[in-house]
Amino acid sequence: MAKNFTTREENYSQWYNELVTKADLAENSAVRGCMVIKPYGYAIWEKMQAAMDKMFKDTGHENAYFPLFIPKSFFNKEASHVKGFAKECAVVTHYRLKSSEDGKGIVVDEDAKLEEELILRPTSETVIWDTYRKWIQSYRDLPILINQWANVVRWEMRTRLFLRTTEFLWQEGHTAHETSEEAVEETLKMLDIYADFAENWMAVPVLKGLKSPVEKFAGAVDTYCIEALMQDGKALQSGTSHFLGQNFAKAFDVKYLSKENKLEYVWATSWGVSTRLMGALVMAHSDDKGLVLPPKLAPIQVVIIPIYKEPDQLEQITEKVKIIKENLETKDISVKYDDRDTYKPGWKFSEYEFKGVPIRLAIGPRDLENGSIELARRDTLKKEILPIEGIENVIKKLLKEIQDNMFEKALKFREENTFEVDTWDEFKAKITEGGFVMAHWDGTPETELKIKEETKATIRTIPLNNPQEVGKCIYSGKPSTERVVFAKAY
Amino acid sequence: MAKNFTTREENYSQWYNELVTKADLAENSAVRGCMVIKPYGYAIWEKMQAAMDKMFKDTGHENAYFPLFIPKSFFNKEASHVKGFAKECAVVTHYRLKSSEDGKGIVVDEDAKLEEELILRPTSETVIWDTYRKWIQSYRDLPILINQWANVVRWEMRTRLFLRTTEFLWQEGHTAHETSEEAVEETLKMLDIYADFAENWMAVPVLKGLKSPVEKFAGAVDTYCIEALMQDGKALQSGTSHFLGQNFAKAFDVKYLSKENKLEYVWATSWGVSTRLMGALVMAHSDDKGLVLPPKLAPIQVVIIPIYKEPDQLEQITEKVKIIKENLETKDISVKYDDRDTYKPGWKFSEYEFKGVPIRLAIGPRDLENGSIELARRDTLKKEILPIEGIENVIKKLLKEIQDNMFEKALKFREENTFEVDTWDEFKAKITEGGFVMAHWDGTPETELKIKEETKATIRTIPLNNPQEVGKCIYSGKPSTERVVFAKAY
Repeated sequence: MAKNFTTREENYSQWYNELVTKADLAENSAVRGCMVIKPYGYAIWEKMQAAMDKMFKDTGHENAYFPLFIPKSFFNKEASHVKGFAKECAVVTHYRLKSSEDGKGIVVDEDAKLEEELILRPTSETVIWDTYRKWIQSYRDLPILINQWANVVRWEMRTRLFLRTTEFLWQEGHTAHETSEEAVEETLKMLDIYADFAENWMAVPVLKGLKSPVEKFAGAVDTYCIEALMQDGKALQSGTSHFLGQNFAKAFDVKYLSKENKLEYVWATSWGVSTRLMGALVMAHSDDKGLVLPPKLAPIQVVIIPIYKEPDQLEQITEKVKIIKENLETKDISVKYDDRDTYKPGWKFSEYEFKGVPIRLAIGPRDLENGSIELARRDTLKKEILPIEGIENVIKKLLKEIQDNMFEKALKFREENTFEVDTWDEFKAKITEGGFVMAHWDGTPETELKIKEETKATIRTIPLNNPQEVGKCIYSGKPSTERVVFAKAY
Repeated sequence: MAKNFTTREENYSQWYNELVTKADLAENSAVRGCMVIKPYGYAIWEKMQAAMDKMFKDTGHENAYFPLFIPKSFFNKEASHVKGFAKECAVVTHYRLKSSEDGKGIVVDEDAKLEEELILRPTSETVIWDTYRKWIQSYRDLPILINQWANVVRWEMRTRLFLRTTEFLWQEGHTAHETSEEAVEETLKMLDIYADFAENWMAVPVLKGLKSPVEKFAGAVDTYCIEALMQDGKALQSGTSHFLGQNFAKAFDVKYLSKENKLEYVWATSWGVSTRLMGALVMAHSDDKGLVLPPKLAPIQVVIIPIYKEPDQLEQITEKVKIIKENLETKDISVKYDDRDTYKPGWKFSEYEFKGVPIRLAIGPRDLENGSIELARRDTLKKEILPIEGIENVIKKLLKEIQDNMFEKALKFREENTFEVDTWDEFKAKITEGGFVMAHWDGTPETELKIKEETKATIRTIPLNNPQEVGKCIYSGKPSTERVVFAKAY
């Protein structure tokens, strides 16, 4: 399985592509830029969904479903929104096929042309705010706290599995509030939930902060984000939470009668994470032997492999494994016993190593005699022999330890790859090497764009509670009061 | 809430539309034929999904995700498939918008025309079998047991909320097998799961059987279905399971090396249910006072409403309700306590009655004194006063009783509305009145189509284990060996 597997050192980008496809997470489909998410990859996504869905519901949100199609005219209602998305819209123009004249093929039926073209949603603010207008009359109808799990389409020119695909899966929250304060509070609450999920489930440390005006969402007043650092020193935006002000309420004329009996525009937020998180998960932790999955998101947490020569040995092992498996499952640990006789133990060892299963147990006839079992950790690759008796308790603790260890390791990596720089030369050097580069910036989009032009680095975020200090912009030399986080990014 | 609510007697179709929208299940969107599934409706769909997803996984299926887009050429590979779906395909032809020449609007950018048009999946056999070709080499790769939860698009001319919408949500299973026998077994296994779900979760009795050649899926060898009877005497196809033979394997050239070292075409099944089930759920049970939901699928199983005049009374009630609620939740019963002061108890009573909450509890100051509580059942509308002590046990049992009662009631309705007829006149009369009409048919598509033309009735199903008997086709008078089920259908 891990044969002919490119190392990170050799070619990070190729390492990632091979890992995603060879570990059965996803593959490219026949349609340009669209992926097939394979069962093993989808099982991880389902775990992500379940964890986040619970977090959303625990904070009062409900799920709903809005149409895939957006009438073209809706797009035009919010000026910056259309500007941001127009260039990547897939457009439905017809609704019927017919046989071609030679009778051999099929062609689009020109008689079935839509009067108004439909856009496949790249995000749903427009169709949702057109709906909210009907739902909101008075303050009694607020807040509306809705989330949607859906597919969206953005016609990307350069695509990569999970990181940037034409169609992707995501969740998008869309909330409506009486006041600006309440909407800002919601925006930050969801940012916290995303950070909590990234750190405590994915074991990926993230910076929380504000996007610069150049990088913010098309239609937002403020965009907040969580940013993670990948092993190649590039940043990955992992989730965004937008304070939309009254922009969409005004565009779609959504007003409510306040307690003071006045008609006011409604305040809005939207927030989303996508299957991009799968890319972050893979790139943050995996190594040259394959995936490394945090126990909380691993579809299989423990794999057990029998080592035997004779059929009766297998029978004895299987009997013992049955008990071990049950004891583990009682503790809500997911276990796979791989007793297939079509593959050798060595093959299975590298298979599960490659697929990032956190703990591997191996058991043979001698272990049965000794009441022992071999345990291997995927994160550290360490092996040890342990008593079978009470192994379920050891594993329960160990899974937590692995989860914590993976986070600590990723955090240490980020800390070692975060740099403060004060000169332009230093900046260029560090940006080339990779990592988060904390530098002063004069606050103008002009400078931001010039820095991007010259170095490909962007402002990833202006951290929340950012220390204020006197400094000079590394590019323009103009005065600045805080450092912002620069990096090259996915 | 239930004011101005049309009765079934007055206008069944209008009753349905009003019920779906006023009970906050779904509403029409700005896009023709597409619906917004509102939070209350979506919560029911989520419960349906969770129950079925578990059934699928318990029988060895895994979830995955395939692209929304299907290249036009894929469609043409299976002849009957393209014939069945070509007339209802939404087609993507362009991938970019641009500003119009006057600068005020946006238009499709003609420079961004796709070389090959993309179809929005009406079902995914083609894109999935194109993928399976890459996944299947030998018998070791089989079976593949995959399910997908997704949105699909069929451009319907006449749409109705849940029953027939341009975009709908569904699950589609696609499996690949070594032998015909194994594939047929899978087809029937999934049919059983659908019937189990319909009867034991939705409380809707269904007939299991085969579709006639005219009604079968475009591309299937055999289509099996579950058919339910609605209160207006019309049938509703609630799920289908297809034995696809080697049709798609041949169309997409999917072969495997057998144990005997021969190259063989793979055998296939596909099976699906959709948000249409929401329509069946509503129409099978609801009445002129609103929704009636089976406890297993009700988002709120018990609602508690306080009856009070003074704030301190509410305080005392709330204290007691807190305990009742906890006791119920310990038994996995979902409870809502509606202590809003913006609505009167009477309003709340009809609100929850309309929304089909299975059990309503009301509690006032006198109840507190007596240690009693008023319980109302939604299915029978019966009320009684019960001791608070141990109410959680009573309710636990009662929820099961309501679930069973709803099924029995629906079953009785179906039995009373299933008729055997032997003459054409009798047939026409019964079909007009509604219900399942069991009649002899000569087995030819010609007769089936003529009967449909003259009466709008279709063959809903040829039941499994259908009793064999000598008879004459009600239409042609030709000999027949079994009765089939006719009805008008949604």
